[in-house]
Amino acid sequence: MTTESDPRFHRSAEAILAAARELLIGEGPAAVTHAQVAARAGVGRATVYRHWPRVDQLLAEAMATVPMPFFDAPTQPVRDWLHGELTAIARQLELHDVRAVTTTLANSALWDPGMDSRRGQFAGVLSERLAQALDDAVAAGEVRLRIAARSAAALAIGPIYYRSTIEHESVDSDFIDAAIDSLGTWRDRG
Amino acid sequence: MTTESDPRFHRSAEAILAAARELLIGEGPAAVTHAQVAARAGVGRATVYRHWPRVDQLLAEAMATVPMPFFDAPTQPVRDWLHGELTAIARQLELHDVRAVTTTLANSALWDPGMDSRRGQFAGVLSERLAQALDDAVAAGEVRLRIAARSAAALAIGPIYYRSTIEHESVDSDFIDAAIDSLGTWRDRG
Repeated sequence: MTTESDPRFHRSAEAILAAARELLIGEGPAAVTHAQVAARAGVGRATVYRHWPRVDQLLAEAMATVPMPFFDAPTQPVRDWLHGELTAIARQLELHDVRAVTTTLANSALWDPGMDSRRGQFAGVLSERLAQALDDAVAAGEVRLRIAARSAAALAIGPIYYRSTIEHESVDSDFIDAAIDSLGTWRDRG
Repeated sequence: MTTESDPRFHRSAEAILAAARELLIGEGPAAVTHAQVAARAGVGRATVYRHWPRVDQLLAEAMATVPMPFFDAPTQPVRDWLHGELTAIARQLELHDVRAVTTTLANSALWDPGMDSRRGQFAGVLSERLAQALDDAVAAGEVRLRIAARSAAALAIGPIYYRSTIEHESVDSDFIDAAIDSLGTWRDRG
């Protein structure tokens, strides 16, 4: 039988992960079962169990394969950069697979410690990156924050997230500007 | 056997619904199965199938038993009323069962048309009620909106929803004020 030092072991892990992610995106978290993942990955069910004894661990790992490019490498003026980043987030959240991953994470985190730690990691990266960018904007005199920089992610992303995952409505530029203005007073805007 | 005119039929429906809601709140949507609901409700599995052939319909109905008291009966000044309503929403979203119901709705709506219609109903009631209250505030000269009144719910509730279900952080009064200010220019605030 294969061992962890066997290349086949790693190839099967990749095939299983890809199959799990396809099922998550296409049919939702309930479709990510050992049997369906094995069938789609073209491996035996025992192989799936050997890699991931618990299906929720496989689900969490499949969700973690979604990249997190947001709020990376801020530029000045920060407001323009922020408007661009929030527009990118809004476009991503129009995609079924991104809505699936984010809402599955928020929901599963309530019962599964592994998913909850993924949630905390996801939220922490976004709020830390944005807080850093806003601190730079404050230092450059571009904005006077009215809230703690660590609260900015929820005020900036929250409206887009709710609009997309609860209202299923689109987000336009004025909507994003309104969210940005909730963070504080921006230069040349009074 | 019992019929729909039989009081026992309605008593069993209530017991099944209560059991489904307990399982949803306590263990999450995955725990709401015909077998577990029947066991907890103290009825036969066939009785559960007779009332709800599909478990997702039972889940949607269990979720609909959560009351929706928000944004009801606005008072003037609207800003104070809105601050109070958003504070109540924030307190509710600190409760595990409310997080469970809202995140399950957002997630299941992506694959289940029945849940999606519940989602649309839920979102529509909130945005219509708030839009009406804001139109009154505009008429009374209390606020100049910067966005369409129908977009206000996402800007006001979204930050609280994200803060609670994604960041798992608490919401304070300044945070709520920041969200309210994103809606427009309020009298005596410039």
